Amino acid sequence: MRILITGAAGMVGRKLIGRLVRDGSVGGKRIAALDLHDIVAPALPEAAGIESTAFTGDLADEGATEALIARKPDLVYHLAGVVSGEAEANFDLGYRVNLDGTRRLFDAIRLSGHRPKVIFTSSIAVFGAPFPEVIPDDFFNTPMTSYGTQKLMGEALLADYSRRGFFDGVGIRLPTICVRPGKPNKAASGFFSGIIREPLAGQEAILPVPRSVVHTHASPRSAVGFLIHAATIDTDRIGPRRNLTMPGVGVTVGEQIDSLTRIAGPKVAALIKEVQDPTIWAIVQNWPTRFEAKRSRDLGFTAETSFDQIVQAHVEDELGGKLPAL
Amino acid sequence: MRILITGAAGMVGRKLIGRLVRDGSVGGKRIAALDLHDIVAPALPEAAGIESTAFTGDLADEGATEALIARKPDLVYHLAGVVSGEAEANFDLGYRVNLDGTRRLFDAIRLSGHRPKVIFTSSIAVFGAPFPEVIPDDFFNTPMTSYGTQKLMGEALLADYSRRGFFDGVGIRLPTICVRPGKPNKAASGFFSGIIREPLAGQEAILPVPRSVVHTHASPRSAVGFLIHAATIDTDRIGPRRNLTMPGVGVTVGEQIDSLTRIAGPKVAALIKEVQDPTIWAIVQNWPTRFEAKRSRDLGFTAETSFDQIVQAHVEDELGGKLPAL
Repeated sequence: MRILITGAAGMVGRKLIGRLVRDGSVGGKRIAALDLHDIVAPALPEAAGIESTAFTGDLADEGATEALIARKPDLVYHLAGVVSGEAEANFDLGYRVNLDGTRRLFDAIRLSGHRPKVIFTSSIAVFGAPFPEVIPDDFFNTPMTSYGTQKLMGEALLADYSRRGFFDGVGIRLPTICVRPGKPNKAASGFFSGIIREPLAGQEAILPVPRSVVHTHASPRSAVGFLIHAATIDTDRIGPRRNLTMPGVGVTVGEQIDSLTRIAGPKVAALIKEVQDPTIWAIVQNWPTRFEAKRSRDLGFTAETSFDQIVQAHVEDELGGKLPAL
Repeated sequence: MRILITGAAGMVGRKLIGRLVRDGSVGGKRIAALDLHDIVAPALPEAAGIESTAFTGDLADEGATEALIARKPDLVYHLAGVVSGEAEANFDLGYRVNLDGTRRLFDAIRLSGHRPKVIFTSSIAVFGAPFPEVIPDDFFNTPMTSYGTQKLMGEALLADYSRRGFFDGVGIRLPTICVRPGKPNKAASGFFSGIIREPLAGQEAILPVPRSVVHTHASPRSAVGFLIHAATIDTDRIGPRRNLTMPGVGVTVGEQIDSLTRIAGPKVAALIKEVQDPTIWAIVQNWPTRFEAKRSRDLGFTAETSFDQIVQAHVEDELGGKLPAL
């Protein structure tokens, strides 16, 4: 099978490629080719027997998606997108990439007459405050960011194009991915990963919100697991409501720190400095806390069941199993 | 004040124009000008002191919306749209008019820096089956038609553009408008009006579904009332969830016929011939039945409270108060 991945140079894209190459197949079908697209050149994996090709450019450019779809991918992972903060800061860029890029990709598929499976990464940003304590699967969509609006519009297109038989789509609403590897970034949600990642690298981390803040997480490994599982399930089981809220671990920040302490010891956890930032706290207070995710669990999507497992996944996948010697 | 109306040649547009001209003002502000746009030339009203201008063309054409917004309307009624059946039959036309036309209008406003009030007619087609017996205001949006998908995307844009302060928007989800004046059309919902309108004109009407079918209606007069009220309410009272399900009268088809019988007599009601059409019934079974509409009622939107009033409104507004002599 041929697999197209947009956003292939991003964190989730790179991890998905790694898993696909390791597995060599999806749902029992051998992977013959990977077409990897991003705005910056995606790295080509070393994989015997898999023909990998890099495509670099803007999905919203005239003809860009047509060229990708002309290669007749059997499976399309549409991961490309401008992140929340950037979509809020740059209105035009967000709508161009997240809405127009998505629509152009979907329309290129529609007009090709080819009917691949399409897995689209959406986000819990399709929900808007105020929230119940646990957000049910049928909670309504009233996004409070341009990013969430663009993801909601992508979800609506995905469901309509699937209903019409242009492709077979599944929308995957990712929770916060934690522990996000790499350097700290300026996202308001960055600290959720930072307070685990930096101490495990022997460095200080700032916690800008109270320990009582509740948030739902899944590891990068689970995010990849969602994407693989979405490609293999029988979509008749999903029915017309094609967009699914993924499971995750709902914990307080205090519980996150307890997990870090259990796994890496109190000296590592002591590298977290509490410096409250009212701006970040104000943003985080409008974020959803816990999700029911019954539909996705019933469909066989699985995530970690404790935050300890999320910390452990980071130690195994990013640190070669090594803890800092403190 | 200057008012722009798109879809001005449509049924709701024409009735809105009639009301605006009769009132001469909206929310206490004198109407100085009406800019009337449609794909076919809208009729200009006779109205002393109101400068009316007709614009004909496709809203999705390059430059079309910019020309309208350059006139700096204080209030924009965006009623233009391709109807449900047409949007389903003609995929490209539906997305072009209902999505691209709406986005171009909203973007023309955004880029003008002018900040009008914008009233957008959405639809209960943003909801998709299966439904609870009464659909609450926070029911989620899983449309099952391309029309409903396009309206949902328009609603999402309206909320985001309002949140960002580009304009001050209100989305009005209309129930089925009944009694729709004019000739019978081929819409699957056509019989809801037809079984009242044709007998009141002394003609036979076909009822293609069982009398037990439940549906929610509001008169054309109420639809215009929603649009006027939306222009006058303080949108701070609405908050960020800008799209409102309007109230209406939820009745069985049997109760519709009972109203007709009470108002026009059994001989008129006997003009309804029951000829079941399994295709129409199959479509109608996926339609929502009743709505809570608590938010809109609390905000002062009002509709008829009985189907008798809906029949009476038709007799008064379309038949000069006259019943057929049977």
